[in-house]
Amino acid sequence: MKELKSVETCNVSRRKMLLGTGALAAGVALSQVGGLIKSAEATGGKTEKWPWPYKKLDPAKTAEIAYNEWYRVFCGAAVINSVFTQLREKIGEPYASFPSDAFVFLEGGQVGWGTICGSPAGANIVANLIIGPRIDGAHAGHQIAQDIMQWYSETELPTFTPTKPRISATLPTTTSNSPLCHLSVGKWMKAADKSLKSKERKDRCARVAASTAYQLVTYLNEWKEGSYEATSDFSCSKENGITGQFNCTECHGDDVPEAPGA
Amino acid sequence: MKELKSVETCNVSRRKMLLGTGALAAGVALSQVGGLIKSAEATGGKTEKWPWPYKKLDPAKTAEIAYNEWYRVFCGAAVINSVFTQLREKIGEPYASFPSDAFVFLEGGQVGWGTICGSPAGANIVANLIIGPRIDGAHAGHQIAQDIMQWYSETELPTFTPTKPRISATLPTTTSNSPLCHLSVGKWMKAADKSLKSKERKDRCARVAASTAYQLVTYLNEWKEGSYEATSDFSCSKENGITGQFNCTECHGDDVPEAPGA
Repeated sequence: MKELKSVETCNVSRRKMLLGTGALAAGVALSQVGGLIKSAEATGGKTEKWPWPYKKLDPAKTAEIAYNEWYRVFCGAAVINSVFTQLREKIGEPYASFPSDAFVFLEGGQVGWGTICGSPAGANIVANLIIGPRIDGAHAGHQIAQDIMQWYSETELPTFTPTKPRISATLPTTTSNSPLCHLSVGKWMKAADKSLKSKERKDRCARVAASTAYQLVTYLNEWKEGSYEATSDFSCSKENGITGQFNCTECHGDDVPEAPGA
Repeated sequence: MKELKSVETCNVSRRKMLLGTGALAAGVALSQVGGLIKSAEATGGKTEKWPWPYKKLDPAKTAEIAYNEWYRVFCGAAVINSVFTQLREKIGEPYASFPSDAFVFLEGGQVGWGTICGSPAGANIVANLIIGPRIDGAHAGHQIAQDIMQWYSETELPTFTPTKPRISATLPTTTSNSPLCHLSVGKWMKAADKSLKSKERKDRCARVAASTAYQLVTYLNEWKEGSYEATSDFSCSKENGITGQFNCTECHGDDVPEAPGA
């Protein structure tokens, strides 16, 4: 039994310039009092031994798979399948037994509610399934998920162009400043002046899934090589005393509330 | 091969009163042009045959498990484990092989980023793993996820009080009007005047996980009995031409942008 540190303690601050005047940048060091039990002991699950076996994958090939899978299972399951279909072939179990297609519901920010984009949601699942949860002593899965969230928010997407795109026109690229589907899709739709139901919007989302799969496999390959270093420097709870993103003023305007105890 | 309908086509409108004057409530009927391939054929995954076997569970017992599991694996994995640990015992596979603890990263709205609360994220995973994805011909998993999102957003949470609470004081209840961790936790912290690191906030989140597990098992039991009827009447894309929540003015104020093509 050792003390379980909560997610809020991980990172170094840097986004204060983006906050309204009401926001406090408090460096609270938090700790969970719940006890740590090794996952495998607690649940007896035979797939709960980490890390899962991994072989380095080609990022571009993975992105192509994600692009095409989007048209079958949408963003979240496309990212999962882009990695797992290859590892099923190269390795077999536990990838063969993982029910990836159940994650179609990640579409549209989870059944259309516009919360987290399915592409980072799927990437986070893959990284944590392969590397394991931080309560099991592995931290790189959690860190890769943090890196994916920040990379997705800060990058002009899509970055990947498929070899055989279904849309021949050049698509605009936009920076979402958020991992939320609503903001990511909304900003792109505004820049492109295209509707949600347009072929261009769909192909943009397929390319975002492909771009995310490319980035995910880049991180996983570095982790496999032993060269992965976490780059995300954002922790909202550490800076603001609440879970959240870095774009406070985008919703709050100048009137960013101060969290109790921050 | 049949046409795959996108998530945007599912529901009936009702939230127009919540929208600012700039929002259009357009009833766009969308369809994806991607082809449908049965999941099992596409991936060969042996767990990708739906529905998975299910036996009715006691909602209160499930909620107690979720409450206690929160202190080990946080919100998302607590909800998953509250159902799957029981089904591992009652049924065995495929629950025994599912790596639930990998989903610790759902904490704090995914590694602390405040996006979807881990409790509905975990519930959505459970419903779709058991019932299967809509591309496989099953729709109740998708519908239960929609119901969970709406129930979570509209309900004064937490609804469940554990038999042996770790905090003896009465905790306030709040309605988030959103499935996002940032809004759910933030509104509760404001009402309770408690910090993110407080014992009260942690126990509130453990009880929200328990409340969500209770509601999820209520839906799953109805589905097993054949009496489940979808109740969610919200589809942002149908009403507004974009994925999203119903609380438009909460972030946009009166200046809700109109989606292209809406």
